[in-house]
Amino acid sequence: MKILVLPGDGIGPEIVAQAKKVLATLQSDGLKIELEEAPLGGAGYDAHGAPYPEVTQKLARAADAVLLGAVGGPQYDKLDRPLRPERGLLAIRKDLNLFANLRPAILYPELANASTLKPEVVSGLDILIVRELTGDIYFGQPRGVRINEAGEREGFNTMLYSESEIRRIGHVAFQAARKRNKKLCSVDKANVLETTEFWKEIMIDVARDYPDVELSHMYVDNAAMQLVRNPKQFDVMVTGNIFGDILSDEASMLTGSIGMLPSASLDANNKGLYEPSHGSAPDIAGKDLANPLATILSVAMMLRYSFNAEETATRVENAVKAVLAQGLRTADIYEAGTEKVSCSAMGDAVVAAL
Amino acid sequence: MKILVLPGDGIGPEIVAQAKKVLATLQSDGLKIELEEAPLGGAGYDAHGAPYPEVTQKLARAADAVLLGAVGGPQYDKLDRPLRPERGLLAIRKDLNLFANLRPAILYPELANASTLKPEVVSGLDILIVRELTGDIYFGQPRGVRINEAGEREGFNTMLYSESEIRRIGHVAFQAARKRNKKLCSVDKANVLETTEFWKEIMIDVARDYPDVELSHMYVDNAAMQLVRNPKQFDVMVTGNIFGDILSDEASMLTGSIGMLPSASLDANNKGLYEPSHGSAPDIAGKDLANPLATILSVAMMLRYSFNAEETATRVENAVKAVLAQGLRTADIYEAGTEKVSCSAMGDAVVAAL
Ligand SMILES: CC(C)[C@H](C(=O)O)[C@@H](O)C(=O)O
Ligand SMILES: CC(C)[C@H](C(=O)O)[C@@H](O)C(=O)O
Repeated sequence: MKILVLPGDGIGPEIVAQAKKVLATLQSDGLKIELEEAPLGGAGYDAHGAPYPEVTQKLARAADAVLLGAVGGPQYDKLDRPLRPERGLLAIRKDLNLFANLRPAILYPELANASTLKPEVVSGLDILIVRELTGDIYFGQPRGVRINEAGEREGFNTMLYSESEIRRIGHVAFQAARKRNKKLCSVDKANVLETTEFWKEIMIDVARDYPDVELSHMYVDNAAMQLVRNPKQFDVMVTGNIFGDILSDEASMLTGSIGMLPSASLDANNKGLYEPSHGSAPDIAGKDLANPLATILSVAMMLRYSFNAEETATRVENAVKAVLAQGLRTADIYEAGTEKVSCSAMGDAVVAAL
Repeated sequence: MKILVLPGDGIGPEIVAQAKKVLATLQSDGLKIELEEAPLGGAGYDAHGAPYPEVTQKLARAADAVLLGAVGGPQYDKLDRPLRPERGLLAIRKDLNLFANLRPAILYPELANASTLKPEVVSGLDILIVRELTGDIYFGQPRGVRINEAGEREGFNTMLYSESEIRRIGHVAFQAARKRNKKLCSVDKANVLETTEFWKEIMIDVARDYPDVELSHMYVDNAAMQLVRNPKQFDVMVTGNIFGDILSDEASMLTGSIGMLPSASLDANNKGLYEPSHGSAPDIAGKDLANPLATILSVAMMLRYSFNAEETATRVENAVKAVLAQGLRTADIYEAGTEKVSCSAMGDAVVAAL
């Protein structure tokens, strides 16, 4: 199995370094993997003048799975739009056809205090958000800034979903729900937007293949409220790219420990890009302070989804649980009574627990 | 001053009835108002076959301010899209050019427990969300469902903002911030959507007229997170129609008592439509159980924004605070140690406190 590692920017290199220690351990235990490395985002721009350089593209297409740290940093803010780090992320998602973004929002019992929500509201929280990732207003044409009929400038974008795009993400979501608590909530704004009214219609049709899964529908504004009011009502949520962007970030913050949350972005053949849900945190980059656990848990998702190695995935997840149980914490999840450790020490502890 | 009252559907009539008691009291104290009444939403459909009937439109155009209960109910779900209750709401907003939606999210100290967030995170919360209400993907053309080049059906909508639309909501937001803590956060997705990159550019330009207000920018996904992580960092937030729909609902749920939150939708001359932030709650309609305080506080906003009667507005708000201090609670905000009262009893209590 070929894994392409994209350290990226900010804390990316240091968190990815810990994930590589985990991969090396699994390798010495017999896991057949080959690692390559390439730049993405600001690092791509620095090395090759583009956020998704050709060399990275070539390796990414050839890989079975991609592990990404994070992209972005203030030094790139003034670049032209097509050169900015996040363009690299959008480009690789689109290029590899990674239409299914899986974002778990899980509250680890040891970290229950980290949430800003009351313990009884979030304890045991375990939501999976399935976000469509290669369609919607993110990629819809036409788009831009133009002069309108009144002679005024106007900005415009196009929200767009074809039937097959909705169907394929629907199947991913129903299948995920089937492996969990068999409840799927499809989020739309069908009372206002035709695109999402259409989305709802197709979801209802896809549901006929999954009589064992209970499908419900919720407006996006209500979903944003319900995540705050009673997040444990949800099992799996499925929604489009822009609503998913907003709701998955809201959901991960419910846990208070976004440094713990991995994500997977899959194509139709379970090739995937795996990355932590958090960003590149330029303010703490290079200081060995970052939390590598979301990246390590992203490796677990890679093992599960791309390599079908459920047992090894669980082994990695258990190692993470073990270091939490030992009381080890990076700065972002530290609280009195626990032991504060650096990024690299946390990586070493996970390796030891493996 | 002519006020058009639109009771609407569900609990609308009963909450509006309490607000009318308040208006009657102010009238007998010398406030010069005339009330008319008309149907909107499902009630409009029942009476005249349209969610925004002509008779309602005529009266709404002639009025100085509109007081709305709520619209919507399950009996209207099967109607054709143009006949559904929420179409009436969208139509009156557009028809009266009510582009500035002001939605306060305030946590009343007496109701601090109602929040699902920890007290230290939300106590003293006082955010004002300024949402653009007549543009964006809500009204953008083209839109619909069509057959694409591949012969497949696709749903599509258009996000759209002209410079003047952004400018005018920008001015409303800066002026509101000036009267508060002088901090304005403009929410966009400028890293992906040209419309909102343009939005950001215009906001920065408008800011030059308000050197005393501190303008910041935040991506919508981050804003959805920050509202959960640390909502008290915000003073005024300004954003487009669809992001505002999502974020204002999220923000109001932070208080745990959406039954307390009013809203105002203003045109360029401070003519406005005032309504509670909550919905029509068909499940408790007609049972005298609803919380009328958001509607009564909407009257206070009407007095402040449309009638420039700051003192009378404060008098109404103080009456609401007084009934809370007396321990009176409708079912939605009831907790042990307080006194549960009906919708009409709550209305009477506010009148008594006036
Ligand atoms: C960086 C940005 C383009 C990206 C997105 O909006 O998809 C990010 O917010 C995410 O969710 O991965
Ligand atoms: C009912 C619906 C059309 C409306 C909206 O989306 O604007 C509502 O959610 C609101 O926020 O007032």
